[in-house]
Amino acid sequence: MSTTPLPGSSRHERPNIGILFRDIHQDVVRRVAAGLAKAGFDDVRPAHTAVFQHIKAEGSRLTDLAEQAQITKQSMGYLVDYLEERGYLERRPDPNDRRVALICLTDRGWQEVEAALAIIAEIEGGWTQRLGKGRMHELREALTELRPARTSEPDRS
Amino acid sequence: MSTTPLPGSSRHERPNIGILFRDIHQDVVRRVAAGLAKAGFDDVRPAHTAVFQHIKAEGSRLTDLAEQAQITKQSMGYLVDYLEERGYLERRPDPNDRRVALICLTDRGWQEVEAALAIIAEIEGGWTQRLGKGRMHELREALTELRPARTSEPDRS
Repeated sequence: MSTTPLPGSSRHERPNIGILFRDIHQDVVRRVAAGLAKAGFDDVRPAHTAVFQHIKAEGSRLTDLAEQAQITKQSMGYLVDYLEERGYLERRPDPNDRRVALICLTDRGWQEVEAALAIIAEIEGGWTQRLGKGRMHELREALTELRPARTSEPDRS
Repeated sequence: MSTTPLPGSSRHERPNIGILFRDIHQDVVRRVAAGLAKAGFDDVRPAHTAVFQHIKAEGSRLTDLAEQAQITKQSMGYLVDYLEERGYLERRPDPNDRRVALICLTDRGWQEVEAALAIIAEIEGGWTQRLGKGRMHELREALTELRPARTSEPDRS
């Protein structure tokens, strides 16, 4: 019985760059989620990264968070509500305009950010061991060059 | 007004490797979707890549597709139904066991695969121009080494 994979198959000897990036990205997401769960943050989902990554130390407005994460304001609202209910975020009045709420990290929110960054650093450390410092440096340089400029179009996927 | 971003922020000068992989992966997904839409395949969603990537030229069983894509059989069933309704796939009896259906690409399905691979090749071509052949080769080597081995655990995210 023939088992010819298609040219785009992951089982192909030379996976295309779309597959390489997807697989490594998914692996990082899985490892961060597993590490966070192990550290006691088992109610944080990969989608919430969009909040933790963009929120400012002094707090952010919902509109700004949505714009920076390139998702709709409604989607960001869901994520923020979820994290607020679980004690990671709190809403405070903006000192510059008290009619507007600033979304801020709580102590627990800061702990989550630190835990996530520690896991990422551990993954990067493992990669540096495997590739060596020189190749890891080259990899980072290439990725930084290929990283797209942020567009203003929200991601509705 | 202070605008201190967090250490994990995408606006940080030295984005962590999690952010680099996520941004580039998302960019590839967006460009493939845009290219497919332009080529007339505007009903194909990024999630359907899991089908097109793993399906064999002679057809695949649903169970095998789900296992290879690391999603549940039910999730794969939804994706396959959607693509069958839109003419990309058809079910035929397995010649080795006629009680079982083989999921096969139609002519339109093959056209989609070819279009997607052409878009990926174009993206890779653009990157090779930017990085140069040598650095692109190094990048591919590094990514191939860092790509995780497939696990047997289905991805339920």
